[in-house]
Amino acid sequence: MARVLTPRAEDFPRWYQDVIAKAELADNGPVRGTMVIRPTAYAIWERMQADMDARIKATGAENAYFPLFIPESYLHREAQHVEGFSPELAVVTHGGGKQLAEPVVVRPTSETVIGEFMAKWVDSYRDLPLLLNQWANVVRWEMRPRIFLRTSEFLWQEGHTAHATEQDAKDYTLRIHHQVYEKHMRDLLAIPVIPGRKTDRERFAGATSTYTLEGMMGDGKALQMGTSHELGQNFARAFDIQYSSAAGVREYAWTTSWGSSTRMLGGLIMCHGDDNGLRLPPLVAPTQALVMVVKETDGSITAAAKGLVDDLAAAGVRVKLDDRVDTPFGRRAVDAELKGVPLRIEVGPRDLAAGNVTLARRIDGSKTPLPIGGVVAAVTEALVADQQGLYDEALARREASTVEVKTLDEAIEASQSGWAKLPWSAVGVDGEAKANESAITVRCLFREDGSAPAAQDEPNLTAILGRSY
Amino acid sequence: MARVLTPRAEDFPRWYQDVIAKAELADNGPVRGTMVIRPTAYAIWERMQADMDARIKATGAENAYFPLFIPESYLHREAQHVEGFSPELAVVTHGGGKQLAEPVVVRPTSETVIGEFMAKWVDSYRDLPLLLNQWANVVRWEMRPRIFLRTSEFLWQEGHTAHATEQDAKDYTLRIHHQVYEKHMRDLLAIPVIPGRKTDRERFAGATSTYTLEGMMGDGKALQMGTSHELGQNFARAFDIQYSSAAGVREYAWTTSWGSSTRMLGGLIMCHGDDNGLRLPPLVAPTQALVMVVKETDGSITAAAKGLVDDLAAAGVRVKLDDRVDTPFGRRAVDAELKGVPLRIEVGPRDLAAGNVTLARRIDGSKTPLPIGGVVAAVTEALVADQQGLYDEALARREASTVEVKTLDEAIEASQSGWAKLPWSAVGVDGEAKANESAITVRCLFREDGSAPAAQDEPNLTAILGRSY
Repeated sequence: MARVLTPRAEDFPRWYQDVIAKAELADNGPVRGTMVIRPTAYAIWERMQADMDARIKATGAENAYFPLFIPESYLHREAQHVEGFSPELAVVTHGGGKQLAEPVVVRPTSETVIGEFMAKWVDSYRDLPLLLNQWANVVRWEMRPRIFLRTSEFLWQEGHTAHATEQDAKDYTLRIHHQVYEKHMRDLLAIPVIPGRKTDRERFAGATSTYTLEGMMGDGKALQMGTSHELGQNFARAFDIQYSSAAGVREYAWTTSWGSSTRMLGGLIMCHGDDNGLRLPPLVAPTQALVMVVKETDGSITAAAKGLVDDLAAAGVRVKLDDRVDTPFGRRAVDAELKGVPLRIEVGPRDLAAGNVTLARRIDGSKTPLPIGGVVAAVTEALVADQQGLYDEALARREASTVEVKTLDEAIEASQSGWAKLPWSAVGVDGEAKANESAITVRCLFREDGSAPAAQDEPNLTAILGRSY
Repeated sequence: MARVLTPRAEDFPRWYQDVIAKAELADNGPVRGTMVIRPTAYAIWERMQADMDARIKATGAENAYFPLFIPESYLHREAQHVEGFSPELAVVTHGGGKQLAEPVVVRPTSETVIGEFMAKWVDSYRDLPLLLNQWANVVRWEMRPRIFLRTSEFLWQEGHTAHATEQDAKDYTLRIHHQVYEKHMRDLLAIPVIPGRKTDRERFAGATSTYTLEGMMGDGKALQMGTSHELGQNFARAFDIQYSSAAGVREYAWTTSWGSSTRMLGGLIMCHGDDNGLRLPPLVAPTQALVMVVKETDGSITAAAKGLVDDLAAAGVRVKLDDRVDTPFGRRAVDAELKGVPLRIEVGPRDLAAGNVTLARRIDGSKTPLPIGGVVAAVTEALVADQQGLYDEALARREASTVEVKTLDEAIEASQSGWAKLPWSAVGVDGEAKANESAITVRCLFREDGSAPAAQDEPNLTAILGRSY
């Protein structure tokens, strides 16, 4: 069989590009750094959105929509924010055939414009907390674009909330961090993520605390999969988000923001993919099972295959029929592997004569003969097992590629092929700067019990260092 | 009771603005012509999206996502298209701190960029039809903005398909027009729309046929609620979308596009609203029934109300509790009316002592005492009846405001307060130009049996004329 993909061990970035092209996930757009998300990838994204959206709504947040265009002056109101985003802005200077009096930026994120409206909508402590989320496209001009991971335009959800107290803002941020993002990534995407706090150096522009979820990719690098920020009163002061307390005093609100994006599609590919292509967790797979007519004789094979499709669909499985018998079976099987379809049910004349079909599992590559009457039970069982199987495999790989070390030099060494875990006190602000010189970053900090520190100068913190996307 | 809204008869546009502000549906954005869609309106939009998306997918189309930014040169490839959209473009001239070599436009619609990729993806007749849809924001610089109806940025779905034959393209366009758009508007939005063909003068820039659905608003004006276009081979030639036929000949594909937008939210408000505010069709109402504690005595009223909420939720009703007894009941009832909540179940001490509650219906303003045990049955029945009731009322109003006439002068006269229906032969191209001078347009053309003409010079066509949004 001709080699379809560059092997991961040979050239991981090339393998990633190959998978995206061959599995028809996305294309580069005509404007540098933009992307076209093709139907297969978009269908995965829709399942991710549905899961994430339900989890976000369960926290009490409501969806809304704020404008794409933001007056340039808004960004200047929060000093760190404008400094962080200025180099990445796309600027509209002409509209409706005329030069605009004030240029507008295409939103790189919406803290500023949402802050402006929070100030209008919040009056009393009774209006708090104000919990908003939006699904939107954002633009951050990208010099080194890579599809899904770093694109000039990407799709995301961005949550923005305002609270009466710092504690309430912190509690809510951590709820999003753990109950929404961490659970989504573990339970739906089957990616074992490490939750923690970003160092001050890695913090979001304008935040007082940034929490992150770090996943390890197939090459040992880290991917930041979603972040949540406590913004303190920075944006409340910049946009005058004030409320009257129960005691009748005007106070600034405490705000938060949190986002997760199509970048997670890159994480899904790089965490689970193998040299044969994508491997999709059953819960996000648009097609969970593909019933394949191996070859046709008198029509009975296709009839049996169609019967299985109906039975599986009735059992709630997302199933498709592949009866393209004009195309060689091997090519179709390779294509299904490339696209990461979790299960194939192969129906051929010889097996069927004995009342059997073959169950081929993408996750572990196994092929098992099955009596045709046992297909529905075997498929539903395999879908559950393979969702867990992918998670377990990713966790085992992460553990094998994470080295506990004592010194910064050891950490830098270990980060060449995976992650280093060590006391943050052995790194510190200076060590972090030094690691950065070797393109190694502190991915996150956490306490001994795994919880998120309130500040990076807390004692007894553990740090994860690694290379990253 | 203080007047909350400007009465419709006094100033319909002002009433519309008032409803949007008081029902907290939307705000003007900081950049002229943009809007902020607030949670209540966005929740309605999400229900509309879910219904529309399912109908679109049922036709076989798949969702994808194409870039926001389009090279300016793409628009110039189709002469009519660039002429139609040039005056409305927003242009990005700077990205990442530098002036761009070629300015990019923010998509006003995506025929061009999608055409570019169709050309890459289509090779053989086996690749056709290619049926794509995307949910996205688009930008058309707007000189006279009005929230939902004409905004510089709006949200929509845009479908784009490529077919092997003109007939297949036509059939699919009409399927979207009738099975997707018309059914969505009638069955979900309860708006009786007239399907028909746009005149050549009103056709989409670059299309060979444009089909429209026209709804009559509360002031007798027409709102174009969704359009579907046959693009002939115009874009296929401009972007080189060719395929090899079964006979091995290279042929240009036939493409279509079709869109519906947040403009429909404006239609929903203006079709069904009354002087007390919104009236939402139960199928799109985020809250279908509001159980209200009129006042509390010993906690028993709230307990009974909560019991009803649980029973209604268990029956699949989208229900909320209003137990804000600190706020006067009258104010809460007015607010629920403003926001268009279809049903209120008012639970008060006196009624409850007799085992009763009051069912207040927003659609017809009726108030009926009900035994508490009969609430679930009455509510589920009322939701179905009121969905139909709104449709029937809108249809009756449209029929009462549509005058059958014989001449153009009569049509112009009738269009002052509603629609005129007359033979298209009595109008013609010259009559259309004359009507336009009085801000009256030909809304659509249809055959005697109601079907869409293949061209405007077909004999025996009927025309609808009116003022429009």
